[in-house]
Amino acid sequence: MLTLYYAPHTCALATHIVLEETGAAYAGKRIDFASNQQRSPEYLKVNPKGRVPALVTDRGILTETPAMLVYVAQSFPAAGLAPMDDPFLFAEIQSFNSYLCSHLHVAHAHRMRGYRWVDADDAHSIAAMQRKVPQSVGEAFAMVEREMLKGPWVMGERYTICDPYLFTLAQWLEADGVDPKTIPRVIDHRRRMSERSTVKKAIAQEVGQKLA
Amino acid sequence: MLTLYYAPHTCALATHIVLEETGAAYAGKRIDFASNQQRSPEYLKVNPKGRVPALVTDRGILTETPAMLVYVAQSFPAAGLAPMDDPFLFAEIQSFNSYLCSHLHVAHAHRMRGYRWVDADDAHSIAAMQRKVPQSVGEAFAMVEREMLKGPWVMGERYTICDPYLFTLAQWLEADGVDPKTIPRVIDHRRRMSERSTVKKAIAQEVGQKLA
Repeated sequence: MLTLYYAPHTCALATHIVLEETGAAYAGKRIDFASNQQRSPEYLKVNPKGRVPALVTDRGILTETPAMLVYVAQSFPAAGLAPMDDPFLFAEIQSFNSYLCSHLHVAHAHRMRGYRWVDADDAHSIAAMQRKVPQSVGEAFAMVEREMLKGPWVMGERYTICDPYLFTLAQWLEADGVDPKTIPRVIDHRRRMSERSTVKKAIAQEVGQKLA
Repeated sequence: MLTLYYAPHTCALATHIVLEETGAAYAGKRIDFASNQQRSPEYLKVNPKGRVPALVTDRGILTETPAMLVYVAQSFPAAGLAPMDDPFLFAEIQSFNSYLCSHLHVAHAHRMRGYRWVDADDAHSIAAMQRKVPQSVGEAFAMVEREMLKGPWVMGERYTICDPYLFTLAQWLEADGVDPKTIPRVIDHRRRMSERSTVKKAIAQEVGQKLA
């Protein structure tokens, strides 16, 4: 039995979808960002980084989305979401997810979490970061659109753990000021993802569930 | 035959060390950052992101350090640097490397590459980012020291792809303004890594080699 700690509208959704798609037995535990529960002493025992997602397993607790996605896919291989027996294809999957994590998500984080990289009371710099987000996030999505998204799924004909992750980060692009018309293939991918029953179920759980 | 595109004093060193340690047949090609070669039309054909490292394989080109480290380790399994048959241990390895890539390296990048997240001519915000680096990078290394580095190697008794990656990023901590005395276990790890013949060889190749 796995337990996923998540908050709505975060990158935890990617792992949530993959848990649904593999048929894993899991429980979801919602962390309340409004009351800063991710920094509570109880949650810091789960994840000392004070962030979501975190995945509790029988052998210990895992964090960091790219690692969690592979772990779930490898633990429930019947769904075929991460072909690890093909080193090059697996590396392409990992490369894509690493780009989302360390470039695209990082660019996005400068809109709401600028205090990580400048003093929180430096209003000029916080605002400067926010102004750059449409460009920096837009360029990252343009790279995905032009160079990385093979179509119809990220890795081509094969649906993999890359697809829920791209879908998750693509939830935020309008709020980040990216013009959807500049990335039609990403938008079409997002639409097709949104029609999957597993995706609908994961989102419904996140936005509808009561606090644990 | 693999070809590693690298520049000295970048995170490419991690993959360079792993290539040495696995005994892979490879060639190194140095990219000259001083002349902005990473943005040249020729190099953008290798890596459209305009960054190092990149790894040319028989099947295509790979980028993103966490993906490249696993690819090399999986392709040359005799060295045992990434135990993929143990999903939880492999996930811990991946989680560690993802943290280095998306948190520690990102915090570091705000010292020299602030223009990625604010306008390049905004001197106030560029300087504000630089002032925060000792704290943000210091907190990331403190997290590694306190919660992640099991010792003697990152994953405990077993040497893995995490070790060259941590060593590589630990090259920069003094320049980032982090006090080495606050992270004695990271510093001891760095010292032991620096004594390995493979590490010495990779560094010598990077700093001594003529331009390709």
